[in-house]
Amino acid sequence: MFEFPIRVYWEDTDAGGIVFYANYLKFFERARTEWLRSLGVQQAGLREATGGIFVVSETAVRFLRPARLDDELLVTARLESAGRASLIIAQRASLRAAGALLAEGTIRIGWVDAASLKPGRIPPAILERLYP
Amino acid sequence: MFEFPIRVYWEDTDAGGIVFYANYLKFFERARTEWLRSLGVQQAGLREATGGIFVVSETAVRFLRPARLDDELLVTARLESAGRASLIIAQRASLRAAGALLAEGTIRIGWVDAASLKPGRIPPAILERLYP
Amino acid sequence: MFEFPIRVYWEDTDAGGIVFYANYLKFFERARTEWLRSLGVQQAGLREATGGIFVVSETAVRFLRPARLDDELLVTARLESAGRASLIIAQRASLRAAGALLAEGTIRIGWVDAASLKPGRIPPAILERLYP
Amino acid sequence: MFEFPIRVYWEDTDAGGIVFYANYLKFFERARTEWLRSLGVQQAGLREATGGIFVVSETAVRFLRPARLDDELLVTARLESAGRASLIIAQRASLRAAGALLAEGTIRIGWVDAASLKPGRIPPAILERLYP
Repeated sequence: MFEFPIRVYWEDTDAGGIVFYANYLKFFERARTEWLRSLGVQQAGLREATGGIFVVSETAVRFLRPARLDDELLVTARLESAGRASLIIAQRASLRAAGALLAEGTIRIGWVDAASLKPGRIPPAILERLYP
Repeated sequence: MFEFPIRVYWEDTDAGGIVFYANYLKFFERARTEWLRSLGVQQAGLREATGGIFVVSETAVRFLRPARLDDELLVTARLESAGRASLIIAQRASLRAAGALLAEGTIRIGWVDAASLKPGRIPPAILERLYP
Repeated sequence: MFEFPIRVYWEDTDAGGIVFYANYLKFFERARTEWLRSLGVQQAGLREATGGIFVVSETAVRFLRPARLDDELLVTARLESAGRASLIIAQRASLRAAGALLAEGTIRIGWVDAASLKPGRIPPAILERLYP
Repeated sequence: MFEFPIRVYWEDTDAGGIVFYANYLKFFERARTEWLRSLGVQQAGLREATGGIFVVSETAVRFLRPARLDDELLVTARLESAGRASLIIAQRASLRAAGALLAEGTIRIGWVDAASLKPGRIPPAILERLYP
């Protein structure tokens, strides 16, 4: 399972003293990007090579426990399913020390033309990397 | 239906040239906050009066069309259902001019003690305001 | 003096219970954008018409007093000086109710080609609007 | 010289295709936090131990070159001067590969009581760690 460490800074917190929930979407994206990179899929390079980019088309997230300033999280990314035009990635954020689950969810990303943003078919070379 | 206008600034966009999807959660929250305020429910005041706050416990959002710099959006908020400890709010963001739907979703907010963050029962005075 | 109202939401605060200082740069930019719009200078339109955009090249900000959740701010923008390639804008954020000054600073924005990001001369039509 | 690596993700960019300038303040803070941590100064722990926190009271930043999606930056932090109640930290962000300087600035942080936010004297134990 791919895991990516993320530290909580002031920028991530809100006046409740905890990580602002919307920021878990950022944490998930950092982990997802590094997971794709670890499979040889680099987004900036892809855009130049293919004219396409992944965009997020759907998110479903549950927020279970709060994280606080200076906490160290581990964020996972795992391919749940792949279609011709979109992928569903399952992700979780946990406290590194205690292992407590903080947030979990699924993110659907679709392949689109970078200029028109119209949906297209995911390049086969990318799909092959996802199913090694 | 409660509607709140939101303008798109540079801070809201990403290198795809469009509004960064996670920012719709911020837009939804601004509209939700103003909707609650319009019903007489003010969050900073509530915290002082009751020691409790609403926290987001679940979000499900679909992103349908992109918005761009300088676009004007209308964001709605509507109570979908209310339990003793949480509310589900349905929200939509549309382009003000064309009316095109950009994103829609549901946000569950739960009532918690501001210090311990433990779930509690929503004060009846708040529930009454939601069902006038 | 151009003034723009801004409400503080959860997204703007940090675990200190106050507005996260870096967010004043966002507040300043919203007010600056609306000030330019009030003078007939619309950034998205300009980019299409001229191929150029304003980018921020320098910021100097002092943070004097904290703002909190639900506070209403007034943010000002005023042209301090204009050169051929850049403008310096003076900006202030105050509490609407009490008038207390929260943050103040100067922002230098330079005119660049949107594709190459190379500096260029501010279109005369824009400068004319700034000095009516 | 303390250096901290930072990767550019979608969340950091804007519709100009580059890192949104205000986000360099976040990058600087991450590096500053890790620099303090490397000297044994941990902010969440300090707050519990002393009731005080550092807050940013002044920032001056120049933005020289753009960074883009997937770029790897190195961000430095160096004590420029220390007074009884505040520190000035000099910081720079560069491209890791080419070494090109992207942004540089100084950040003044002041010591305040976490509850009242009133300025106070920096605990001597912290100052000692800064001047080993």
